[in-house]
Amino acid sequence: MALNLLTCICAAERDAISALPPETAAQVLRKGASGDYTKVIDSTAEAAAVAHLEGAGFRGRLVSEELGERRFGADDYPLVVLDPIDGTTNATRGISFYSISVAIADGPMLSDVYAGAVLELPSGRLFTAERGRGALLDGRRIRVNGASPLGSALIGVDLNVMGNREKFMEMAALCVAAKHVRNMGSAAIELSYVASGALDLYADNRGKLRVTDIAAALLILKEAGGTVLDLSGNALDCPLDLKQRVSLVAGHSGACAEALSVIRKP
Amino acid sequence: MALNLLTCICAAERDAISALPPETAAQVLRKGASGDYTKVIDSTAEAAAVAHLEGAGFRGRLVSEELGERRFGADDYPLVVLDPIDGTTNATRGISFYSISVAIADGPMLSDVYAGAVLELPSGRLFTAERGRGALLDGRRIRVNGASPLGSALIGVDLNVMGNREKFMEMAALCVAAKHVRNMGSAAIELSYVASGALDLYADNRGKLRVTDIAAALLILKEAGGTVLDLSGNALDCPLDLKQRVSLVAGHSGACAEALSVIRKP
Repeated sequence: MALNLLTCICAAERDAISALPPETAAQVLRKGASGDYTKVIDSTAEAAAVAHLEGAGFRGRLVSEELGERRFGADDYPLVVLDPIDGTTNATRGISFYSISVAIADGPMLSDVYAGAVLELPSGRLFTAERGRGALLDGRRIRVNGASPLGSALIGVDLNVMGNREKFMEMAALCVAAKHVRNMGSAAIELSYVASGALDLYADNRGKLRVTDIAAALLILKEAGGTVLDLSGNALDCPLDLKQRVSLVAGHSGACAEALSVIRKP
Repeated sequence: MALNLLTCICAAERDAISALPPETAAQVLRKGASGDYTKVIDSTAEAAAVAHLEGAGFRGRLVSEELGERRFGADDYPLVVLDPIDGTTNATRGISFYSISVAIADGPMLSDVYAGAVLELPSGRLFTAERGRGALLDGRRIRVNGASPLGSALIGVDLNVMGNREKFMEMAALCVAAKHVRNMGSAAIELSYVASGALDLYADNRGKLRVTDIAAALLILKEAGGTVLDLSGNALDCPLDLKQRVSLVAGHSGACAEALSVIRKP
Protein backbone atom coordinates (compact mmCIF):
# COMPACT_ATOMS: atom_id res chain seq x y z
CA MET A 1 0.00 0.00 0.00
CA ALA A 2 2.77 2.43 0.98
CA LEU A 3 4.70 1.62 -2.17
CA ASN A 4 1.65 2.29 -4.28
CA LEU A 5 1.39 5.78 -2.73
CA LEU A 6 5.05 6.45 -3.57
CA THR A 7 4.83 5.27 -7.18
CA CYS A 8 1.67 7.36 -7.68
CA ILE A 9 3.55 10.41 -6.37
CA CYS A 10 6.30 9.71 -8.92
CA ALA A 11 3.75 9.42 -11.71
CA ALA A 12 1.94 12.61 -10.67
CA GLU A 13 5.23 14.53 -10.64
CA ARG A 14 6.30 13.15 -13.98
CA ASP A 15 3.02 14.17 -15.60
CA ALA A 16 3.28 17.66 -14.10
CA ILE A 17 6.84 18.36 -15.28
CA SER A 18 6.38 16.82 -18.72
CA ALA A 19 4.14 19.77 -19.61
CA LEU A 20 6.80 22.36 -18.71
CA PRO A 21 8.62 24.17 -21.53
CA PRO A 22 12.42 23.77 -20.94
CA GLU A 23 13.01 27.51 -20.57
CA THR A 24 10.27 27.74 -17.91
CA ALA A 25 11.54 24.68 -16.01
CA ALA A 26 14.91 26.34 -15.35
CA GLN A 27 13.60 29.62 -13.89
CA VAL A 28 14.68 30.27 -10.31
CA LEU A 29 11.84 31.07 -7.91
CA ARG A 30 13.40 31.38 -4.44
CA LYS A 31 15.73 29.70 -1.95
CA GLY A 32 14.23 26.37 -0.85
CA ALA A 33 14.11 24.86 2.64
CA SER A 34 17.21 22.77 1.97
CA GLY A 35 19.26 25.84 1.07
CA ASP A 36 19.38 25.25 -2.70
CA TYR A 37 17.59 27.54 -5.10
CA THR A 38 14.13 26.27 -6.04
CA LYS A 39 13.46 26.25 -9.78
CA VAL A 40 10.10 26.02 -11.50
CA ILE A 41 10.66 22.31 -12.20
CA ASP A 42 11.27 21.61 -8.49
CA SER A 43 8.26 23.65 -7.40
CA THR A 44 5.96 22.14 -10.03
CA ALA A 45 7.02 18.60 -9.12
CA GLU A 46 6.62 19.23 -5.39
CA ALA A 47 3.17 20.79 -5.87
CA ALA A 48 2.07 17.69 -7.80
CA ALA A 49 3.27 15.47 -4.96
CA VAL A 50 1.44 17.55 -2.34
CA ALA A 51 -1.74 17.52 -4.43
CA HIS A 52 -1.51 13.76 -4.73
CA LEU A 53 -1.04 13.32 -0.96
CA GLU A 54 -4.05 15.57 -0.31
CA GLY A 55 -6.18 13.80 -2.88
CA ALA A 56 -5.26 10.40 -1.47
CA GLY A 57 -6.28 11.47 2.05
CA PHE A 58 -2.76 10.97 3.39
CA ARG A 59 -2.34 11.50 7.15
CA GLY A 60 1.15 12.13 8.52
CA ARG A 61 4.04 14.44 7.62
CA LEU A 62 5.98 15.36 4.50
CA VAL A 63 9.60 16.45 4.51
CA SER A 64 10.53 17.82 1.12
CA GLU A 65 13.53 19.66 -0.29
CA GLU A 66 11.73 22.84 -1.28
CA LEU A 67 8.89 23.36 1.23
CA GLY A 68 10.58 21.89 4.29
CA GLU A 69 8.01 20.17 6.50
CA ARG A 70 4.26 19.98 6.06
CA ARG A 71 1.68 18.23 8.22
CA PHE A 72 -1.37 16.38 6.95
CA GLY A 73 -3.39 16.04 10.18
CA ALA A 74 -2.00 15.66 13.69
CA ASP A 75 0.04 12.46 13.40
CA ASP A 76 3.85 12.58 13.17
CA TYR A 77 4.02 9.32 11.20
CA PRO A 78 4.15 8.03 8.60
CA LEU A 79 6.72 10.52 7.34
CA VAL A 80 7.12 10.94 3.56
CA VAL A 81 10.64 12.04 2.57
CA LEU A 82 10.71 13.61 -0.89
CA ASP A 83 13.24 15.03 -3.30
CA PRO A 84 10.83 16.29 -5.98
CA ILE A 85 13.64 16.36 -8.56
CA ASP A 86 17.05 14.83 -7.81
CA GLY A 87 19.45 16.17 -10.43
CA THR A 88 17.76 19.52 -11.05
CA THR A 89 20.88 20.89 -12.74
CA ASN A 90 20.83 18.01 -15.22
CA ALA A 91 17.09 18.39 -15.84
CA THR A 92 17.21 22.12 -16.44
CA ARG A 93 20.40 22.13 -18.50
CA GLY A 94 19.22 19.40 -20.86
CA ILE A 95 21.21 16.43 -19.53
CA SER A 96 19.05 13.31 -19.90
CA PHE A 97 19.61 11.98 -16.40
CA TYR A 98 17.55 12.99 -13.34
CA SER A 99 15.01 11.42 -11.02
CA ILE A 100 12.21 11.61 -8.49
CA SER A 101 13.04 10.16 -5.06
CA VAL A 102 10.40 9.42 -2.44
CA ALA A 103 10.48 7.32 0.73
CA ILE A 104 8.19 6.67 3.69
CA ALA A 105 9.24 6.07 7.30
CA ASP A 106 7.56 4.97 10.52
CA GLY A 107 10.06 6.72 12.79
CA PRO A 108 12.48 9.66 12.91
CA MET A 109 15.62 8.00 11.43
CA LEU A 110 16.90 7.02 7.99
CA SER A 111 16.78 3.42 9.23
CA ASP A 112 13.03 3.81 9.83
CA VAL A 113 12.30 4.05 6.09
CA TYR A 114 10.05 1.12 5.14
CA ALA A 115 9.40 1.77 1.46
CA GLY A 116 11.14 3.78 -1.24
CA ALA A 117 10.87 4.58 -4.94
CA VAL A 118 13.29 6.22 -7.38
CA LEU A 119 11.91 7.02 -10.82
CA GLU A 120 14.73 7.50 -13.34
CA LEU A 121 13.95 10.14 -15.95
CA PRO A 122 13.60 10.52 -18.85
CA SER A 123 13.94 6.72 -19.18
CA GLY A 124 10.98 5.99 -16.89
CA ARG A 125 12.70 3.06 -15.17
CA LEU A 126 11.43 2.57 -11.61
CA PHE A 127 13.52 1.31 -8.68
CA THR A 128 11.49 0.26 -5.63
CA ALA A 129 11.90 -1.50 -2.29
CA GLU A 130 9.89 -2.43 0.76
CA ARG A 131 11.58 -3.31 4.04
CA GLY A 132 12.17 -7.05 4.23
CA ARG A 133 10.79 -7.72 0.75
CA GLY A 134 13.79 -7.06 -1.51
CA ALA A 135 14.46 -4.45 -4.20
CA LEU A 136 13.03 -4.27 -7.71
CA LEU A 137 13.77 -2.55 -11.02
CA ASP A 138 10.59 -2.34 -13.08
CA GLY A 139 9.22 -5.22 -11.02
CA ARG A 140 12.24 -7.53 -11.42
CA ARG A 141 14.40 -8.46 -8.44
CA ILE A 142 17.81 -6.73 -8.30
CA ARG A 143 20.95 -7.50 -6.28
CA VAL A 144 24.23 -5.68 -5.67
CA ASN A 145 27.28 -7.16 -7.36
CA GLY A 146 29.78 -9.27 -5.47
CA ALA A 147 32.93 -7.66 -4.12
CA SER A 148 34.96 -7.21 -7.28
CA PRO A 149 38.40 -5.67 -6.69
CA LEU A 150 38.57 -1.94 -7.33
CA GLY A 151 40.74 -2.51 -10.41
CA SER A 152 37.82 -4.16 -12.19
CA ALA A 153 35.07 -1.98 -10.69
CA LEU A 154 32.77 0.63 -12.25
CA ILE A 155 32.29 3.24 -9.56
CA GLY A 156 30.15 6.34 -9.14
CA VAL A 157 31.52 9.36 -7.31
CA ASP A 158 30.55 12.98 -6.72
CA LEU A 159 33.46 15.27 -7.51
CA ASN A 160 31.45 18.50 -7.32
CA VAL A 161 33.74 19.92 -4.65
CA MET A 162 33.29 23.58 -5.70
CA GLY A 163 36.75 24.82 -4.79
CA ASN A 164 37.54 22.35 -1.99
CA ARG A 165 40.76 20.82 -3.31
CA GLU A 166 41.22 18.72 -0.16
CA LYS A 167 37.95 16.86 -0.81
CA PHE A 168 38.93 16.25 -4.43
CA MET A 169 42.32 14.87 -3.40
CA GLU A 170 40.77 12.51 -0.85
CA MET A 171 39.05 10.80 -3.79
CA ALA A 172 42.08 10.64 -6.08
CA ALA A 173 43.37 7.20 -5.12
CA LEU A 174 39.88 5.69 -5.40
CA CYS A 175 39.26 7.15 -8.87
CA VAL A 176 42.74 6.28 -10.16
CA ALA A 177 42.45 2.67 -8.97
CA ALA A 178 38.97 2.01 -10.41
CA LYS A 179 38.49 0.49 -13.84
CA HIS A 180 35.68 2.93 -14.73
CA VAL A 181 34.52 6.17 -13.09
CA ARG A 182 31.18 7.93 -13.46
CA ASN A 183 29.80 11.18 -12.01
CA MET A 184 26.27 11.38 -13.36
CA GLY A 185 24.66 14.07 -11.22
CA SER A 186 21.77 12.24 -9.48
CA ALA A 187 22.77 10.44 -6.27
CA ALA A 188 19.33 8.82 -6.02
CA ILE A 189 19.87 7.07 -9.36
CA GLU A 190 23.53 6.30 -8.79
CA LEU A 191 22.79 4.65 -5.43
CA SER A 192 19.97 2.70 -7.10
CA TYR A 193 22.49 1.65 -9.77
CA VAL A 194 24.62 0.09 -7.03
CA ALA A 195 21.52 -1.85 -5.98
CA SER A 196 20.98 -3.15 -9.53
CA GLY A 197 24.67 -3.90 -10.17
CA ALA A 198 25.01 -1.19 -12.83
CA LEU A 199 27.64 0.36 -10.53
CA ASP A 200 29.87 -1.62 -8.18
CA LEU A 201 30.26 1.22 -5.68
CA TYR A 202 29.16 4.80 -4.98
CA ALA A 203 31.21 7.16 -2.84
CA ASP A 204 30.64 10.80 -1.84
CA ASN A 205 32.99 12.37 0.70
CA ARG A 206 31.78 15.97 0.42
CA GLY A 207 29.45 15.95 3.43
CA LYS A 208 26.67 17.48 1.34
CA LEU A 209 24.12 14.72 0.71
CA ARG A 210 20.69 15.34 2.23
CA VAL A 211 18.29 12.72 3.56
CA THR A 212 15.86 13.67 0.79
CA ASP A 213 18.48 12.66 -1.82
CA ILE A 214 19.17 9.25 -0.34
CA ALA A 215 16.27 7.99 1.82
CA ALA A 216 14.60 5.94 -0.92
CA ALA A 217 17.78 4.70 -2.61
CA LEU A 218 19.39 3.55 0.64
CA LEU A 219 16.46 1.23 1.38
CA ILE A 220 16.59 -0.02 -2.22
CA LEU A 221 20.30 -0.64 -1.81
CA LYS A 222 20.00 -2.41 1.53
CA GLU A 223 17.14 -4.57 0.26
CA ALA A 224 19.38 -5.49 -2.69
CA GLY A 225 22.00 -6.82 -0.28
CA GLY A 226 24.17 -3.71 -0.14
CA THR A 227 25.95 -1.93 2.68
CA VAL A 228 26.01 1.83 3.37
CA LEU A 229 28.74 3.22 5.60
CA ASP A 230 29.83 6.65 6.73
CA LEU A 231 33.48 7.55 6.17
CA SER A 232 34.40 6.16 9.60
CA GLY A 233 33.13 2.75 8.54
CA ASN A 234 29.97 2.77 10.65
CA ALA A 235 26.54 1.86 9.28
CA LEU A 236 25.06 5.14 8.07
CA ASP A 237 22.06 6.45 9.97
CA CYS A 238 20.82 9.93 10.85
CA PRO A 239 17.60 11.82 11.63
CA LEU A 240 15.24 12.40 8.68
CA ASP A 241 15.88 16.12 8.91
CA LEU A 242 16.68 18.53 6.08
CA LYS A 243 19.54 20.01 8.09
CA GLN A 244 21.48 16.73 8.05
CA ARG A 245 24.41 16.45 5.64
CA VAL A 246 26.21 13.14 5.11
CA SER A 247 29.07 11.44 3.32
CA LEU A 248 28.90 7.75 2.43
CA VAL A 249 30.23 4.73 0.61
CA ALA A 250 27.70 2.22 -0.70
CA GLY A 251 28.03 -1.20 -2.27
CA HIS A 252 28.91 -4.77 -1.36
CA SER A 253 30.41 -4.78 2.14
CA GLY A 254 33.79 -5.89 0.76
CA ALA A 255 33.81 -3.13 -1.85
CA CYS A 256 32.93 -0.54 0.82
CA ALA A 257 35.80 -1.69 3.02
CA GLU A 258 38.27 -1.49 0.12
CA ALA A 259 36.99 1.97 -0.85
CA LEU A 260 37.34 3.32 2.69
CA SER A 261 40.91 2.02 2.81
CA VAL A 262 41.88 4.20 -0.17
CA ILE A 263 39.78 7.33 0.46
CA ARG A 264 42.43 9.51 2.06
CA LYS A 265 41.27 10.94 5.37
CA PRO A 266 41.68 14.68 5.90
CA MET B 1 20.89 13.61 -48.48
CA ALA B 2 24.01 12.58 -46.52
CA LEU B 3 22.34 13.47 -43.25
CA ASN B 4 19.34 11.34 -44.16
CA LEU B 5 21.67 8.36 -44.66
CA LEU B 6 23.21 8.94 -41.24
CA THR B 7 19.91 9.28 -39.39
CA CYS B 8 18.63 6.12 -41.09
CA ILE B 9 21.74 4.28 -39.90
CA CYS B 10 21.00 5.45 -36.36
CA ALA B 11 17.40 4.26 -36.63
CA ALA B 12 18.42 0.88 -38.05
CA GLU B 13 20.88 0.35 -35.22
CA ARG B 14 18.39 1.38 -32.58
CA ASP B 15 15.79 -1.04 -33.90
CA ALA B 16 18.36 -3.86 -33.97
CA ILE B 17 19.61 -3.39 -30.41
CA SER B 18 16.18 -2.81 -28.91
CA ALA B 19 15.38 -6.47 -29.53
CA LEU B 20 18.44 -7.69 -27.57
CA PRO B 21 17.91 -9.17 -24.10
CA PRO B 22 20.23 -7.30 -21.65
CA GLU B 23 22.20 -10.43 -20.74
CA THR B 24 22.87 -11.15 -24.42
CA ALA B 25 23.88 -7.55 -25.21
CA ALA B 26 26.77 -7.70 -22.73
CA GLN B 27 28.39 -10.91 -24.04
CA VAL B 28 31.95 -10.44 -25.31
CA LEU B 29 32.58 -11.80 -28.82
CA ARG B 30 36.15 -10.85 -29.73
CA LYS B 31 38.67 -8.03 -29.78
CA GLY B 32 37.51 -5.33 -32.23
CA ALA B 33 39.53 -3.36 -34.77
CA SER B 34 39.91 -0.44 -32.37
CA GLY B 35 41.44 -2.66 -29.68
CA ASP B 36 38.42 -2.76 -27.37
CA TYR B 37 36.47 -5.95 -26.82
CA THR B 38 33.44 -6.24 -29.11
CA LYS B 39 30.24 -7.13 -27.30
CA VAL B 40 27.04 -8.48 -28.84
CA ILE B 41 25.43 -5.04 -28.68
CA ASP B 42 28.34 -3.48 -30.64
CA SER B 43 28.33 -6.24 -33.22
CA THR B 44 24.54 -6.20 -33.62
CA ALA B 45 24.50 -2.43 -34.04
CA GLU B 46 27.36 -2.47 -36.55
CA ALA B 47 25.75 -5.24 -38.59
CA ALA B 48 22.55 -3.20 -38.80
CA ALA B 49 24.54 -0.20 -40.05
CA VAL B 50 26.33 -2.28 -42.70
CA ALA B 51 23.05 -3.82 -43.84
CA HIS B 52 21.55 -0.35 -44.17
CA LEU B 53 24.50 0.90 -46.23
CA GLU B 54 24.23 -2.13 -48.51
CA GLY B 55 20.49 -1.80 -48.88
CA ALA B 56 20.79 1.91 -49.68
CA GLY B 57 23.33 1.21 -52.44
CA PHE B 58 26.05 3.21 -50.67
CA ARG B 59 29.34 3.57 -52.57
CA GLY B 60 32.46 4.55 -50.63
CA ARG B 61 34.15 3.33 -47.46
CA LEU B 62 33.14 2.64 -43.87
CA VAL B 63 35.49 2.98 -40.91
CA SER B 64 33.89 1.45 -37.85
CA GLU B 65 35.09 0.63 -34.37
CA GLU B 66 34.56 -3.14 -34.53
CA LEU B 67 35.17 -4.20 -38.16
CA GLY B 68 37.87 -1.67 -39.02
CA GLU B 69 37.53 -0.64 -42.68
CA ARG B 70 35.13 -1.93 -45.30
CA ARG B 71 34.78 -0.89 -48.94
CA PHE B 72 31.51 -0.55 -50.82
CA GLY B 73 32.77 -0.39 -54.41
CA ALA B 74 36.05 1.12 -55.62
CA ASP B 75 35.74 4.74 -54.45
CA ASP B 76 37.62 5.97 -51.38
CA TYR B 77 35.01 8.66 -50.64
CA PRO B 78 32.63 9.39 -49.15
CA LEU B 79 33.92 7.85 -45.95
CA VAL B 80 31.42 6.93 -43.23
CA VAL B 81 32.93 7.03 -39.72
CA LEU B 82 30.91 5.00 -37.24
CA ASP B 83 30.92 4.19 -33.57
CA PRO B 84 28.06 1.67 -33.51
CA ILE B 85 27.61 2.18 -29.74
CA ASP B 86 29.44 4.94 -27.88
CA GLY B 87 29.20 4.13 -24.20
CA THR B 88 29.06 0.35 -24.48
CA THR B 89 29.93 -0.05 -20.80
CA ASN B 90 26.94 2.10 -19.83
CA ALA B 91 24.64 0.25 -22.22
CA THR B 92 25.61 -3.22 -21.08
CA ARG B 93 25.73 -2.43 -17.37
CA GLY B 94 22.31 -0.81 -17.34
CA ILE B 95 23.28 2.87 -17.17
CA SER B 96 20.70 4.85 -19.16
CA PHE B 97 23.18 6.92 -21.14
CA TYR B 98 24.79 5.81 -24.42
CA SER B 99 24.64 6.73 -28.08
CA ILE B 100 25.16 5.98 -31.75
CA SER B 101 27.69 8.24 -33.50
CA VAL B 102 28.01 8.42 -37.29
CA ALA B 103 29.70 10.94 -39.59
CA ILE B 104 30.50 11.23 -43.28
CA ALA B 105 33.61 12.82 -44.82
CA ASP B 106 34.78 13.79 -48.31
CA GLY B 107 38.47 13.53 -47.47
CA PRO B 108 40.92 11.76 -45.16
CA MET B 109 40.84 14.15 -42.18
CA LEU B 110 38.55 14.90 -39.24
CA SER B 111 38.11 18.37 -40.75
CA ASP B 112 36.70 16.73 -43.91
CA VAL B 113 33.54 15.57 -42.10
CA TYR B 114 30.57 17.24 -43.78
CA ALA B 115 27.64 15.72 -41.88
CA GLY B 116 27.24 14.04 -38.50
CA ALA B 117 24.57 12.54 -36.28
CA VAL B 118 24.59 11.49 -32.62
CA LEU B 119 21.53 9.62 -31.38
CA GLU B 120 21.28 9.77 -27.59
CA LEU B 121 19.84 6.59 -26.08
CA PRO B 122 17.58 5.58 -24.48
CA SER B 123 16.12 9.12 -24.71
CA GLY B 124 16.03 9.09 -28.53
CA ARG B 125 17.18 12.73 -28.83
CA LEU B 126 19.04 13.36 -32.08
CA PHE B 127 21.92 15.82 -32.53
CA THR B 128 22.80 16.59 -36.16
CA ALA B 129 24.90 18.95 -38.25
CA GLU B 130 25.81 19.62 -41.85
CA ARG B 131 28.92 21.64 -42.75
CA GLY B 132 28.00 25.30 -43.10
CA ARG B 133 24.36 24.77 -42.12
CA GLY B 134 24.48 24.85 -38.32
CA ALA B 135 23.73 22.24 -35.66
CA LEU B 136 20.35 20.90 -34.54
CA LEU B 137 18.85 19.00 -31.62
CA ASP B 138 15.66 17.26 -32.72
CA GLY B 139 15.45 19.74 -35.55
CA ARG B 140 15.90 22.90 -33.44
CA ARG B 141 18.98 25.10 -33.81
CA ILE B 142 21.53 24.79 -30.97
CA ARG B 143 24.46 27.03 -29.96
CA VAL B 144 27.34 26.69 -27.52
CA ASN B 145 27.13 28.84 -24.41
CA GLY B 146 29.13 32.04 -24.06
CA ALA B 147 32.43 31.95 -22.20
CA SER B 148 31.24 31.73 -18.60
CA PRO B 149 34.08 31.70 -16.07
CA LEU B 150 35.07 28.24 -14.84
CA GLY B 151 33.66 29.01 -11.38
CA SER B 152 30.15 29.12 -12.81
CA ALA B 153 30.62 26.38 -15.44
CA LEU B 154 29.16 22.88 -15.75
CA ILE B 155 31.94 20.79 -17.30
CA GLY B 156 32.25 17.27 -18.64
CA VAL B 157 35.48 15.35 -18.16
CA ASP B 158 36.75 11.81 -18.60
CA LEU B 159 38.53 10.65 -15.47
CA ASN B 160 38.81 6.99 -16.54
CA VAL B 161 42.58 7.02 -16.18
CA MET B 162 42.89 3.33 -15.20
CA GLY B 163 45.88 3.64 -12.90
CA ASN B 164 47.52 6.70 -14.48
CA ARG B 165 47.66 9.05 -11.49
CA GLU B 166 49.54 11.69 -13.47
CA LYS B 167 46.62 12.07 -15.91
CA PHE B 168 44.15 12.33 -13.03
CA MET B 169 46.25 15.01 -11.35
CA GLU B 170 46.49 17.06 -14.53
CA MET B 171 42.70 17.46 -14.34
CA ALA B 172 42.51 18.30 -10.63
CA ALA B 173 42.66 22.10 -10.87
CA LEU B 174 40.03 22.13 -13.63
CA CYS B 175 37.59 19.94 -11.68
CA VAL B 176 38.13 21.77 -8.39
CA ALA B 177 37.57 25.18 -10.01
CA ALA B 178 34.38 24.24 -11.91
CA LYS B 179 30.93 24.81 -10.42
CA HIS B 180 29.67 21.41 -11.57
CA VAL B 181 31.49 18.32 -12.88
CA ARG B 182 30.08 15.41 -14.88
CA ASN B 183 31.67 12.21 -16.23
CA MET B 184 28.82 10.48 -18.04
CA GLY B 185 30.59 7.82 -20.12
CA SER B 186 29.72 8.74 -23.72
CA ALA B 187 32.04 11.35 -25.28
CA ALA B 188 29.81 11.60 -28.36
CA ILE B 189 26.89 12.79 -26.20
CA GLU B 190 29.00 14.93 -23.89
CA LEU B 191 30.55 16.79 -26.85
CA SER B 192 27.06 17.22 -28.33
CA TYR B 193 25.98 18.62 -24.95
CA VAL B 194 28.63 21.32 -25.29
CA ALA B 195 27.08 22.14 -28.67
CA SER B 196 23.59 22.47 -27.13
CA GLY B 197 24.79 24.39 -24.07
CA ALA B 198 23.93 21.57 -21.65
CA LEU B 199 27.66 21.55 -20.77
CA ASP B 200 29.91 24.60 -20.90
CA LEU B 201 33.06 22.61 -21.62
CA TYR B 202 34.32 19.09 -22.24
CA ALA B 203 37.91 18.05 -21.56
CA ASP B 204 39.71 14.73 -21.96
CA ASN B 205 43.49 14.62 -21.45
CA ARG B 206 43.96 10.84 -21.55
CA GLY B 207 45.03 10.55 -25.19
CA LYS B 208 42.50 7.74 -25.73
CA LEU B 209 39.66 9.22 -27.79
CA ARG B 210 39.22 7.68 -31.25
CA VAL B 211 37.97 9.41 -34.37
CA THR B 212 34.93 7.14 -34.33
CA ASP B 213 33.96 8.55 -30.91
CA ILE B 214 34.20 12.19 -31.92
CA ALA B 215 33.86 12.67 -35.71
CA ALA B 216 30.13 13.41 -35.66
CA ALA B 217 30.07 15.39 -32.42
CA LEU B 218 32.97 17.64 -33.41
CA LEU B 219 31.14 18.82 -36.53
CA ILE B 220 27.99 19.35 -34.43
CA LEU B 221 30.05 21.34 -31.96
CA LYS B 222 31.80 23.46 -34.60
CA GLU B 223 28.51 24.14 -36.39
CA ALA B 224 27.11 25.27 -33.02
CA GLY B 225 29.84 27.88 -32.76
CA GLY B 226 32.25 25.89 -30.62
CA THR B 227 36.00 25.42 -30.66
CA VAL B 228 37.94 22.16 -30.37
CA LEU B 229 41.60 22.29 -29.40
CA ASP B 230 44.32 19.78 -28.64
CA LEU B 231 46.15 20.19 -25.35
CA SER B 232 48.76 22.43 -27.03
CA GLY B 233 46.01 24.88 -27.96
CA ASN B 234 45.95 24.08 -31.69
CA ALA B 235 42.75 23.40 -33.62
CA LEU B 236 42.25 19.63 -33.40
CA ASP B 237 42.59 17.69 -36.62
CA CYS B 238 43.88 14.22 -37.47
CA PRO B 239 43.46 11.45 -40.06
CA LEU B 240 40.17 9.50 -39.94
CA ASP B 241 42.06 6.40 -38.91
CA LEU B 242 41.19 3.97 -36.10
CA LYS B 243 44.80 4.05 -34.88
CA GLN B 244 44.60 7.75 -33.99
CA ARG B 245 44.21 8.66 -30.32
CA VAL B 246 43.54 12.22 -29.22
CA SER B 247 43.06 14.51 -26.23
CA LEU B 248 40.94 17.65 -26.48
CA VAL B 249 39.15 20.55 -24.90
CA ALA B 250 35.88 21.67 -26.49
CA GLY B 251 33.60 24.63 -25.89
CA HIS B 252 33.44 28.36 -26.44
CA SER B 253 36.91 29.57 -27.46
CA GLY B 254 37.25 31.57 -24.25
CA ALA B 255 36.27 28.58 -22.09
CA CYS B 256 38.80 26.39 -23.94
CA ALA B 257 41.58 28.89 -23.32
CA GLU B 258 40.76 29.09 -19.61
CA ALA B 259 40.60 25.30 -19.34
CA LEU B 260 43.99 24.84 -21.02
CA SER B 261 45.51 27.35 -18.63
CA VAL B 262 44.54 25.18 -15.63
CA ILE B 263 45.05 21.66 -17.02
CA ARG B 264 48.46 20.95 -15.57
CA LYS B 265 50.91 19.85 -18.24
CA PRO B 266 52.90 16.65 -17.61
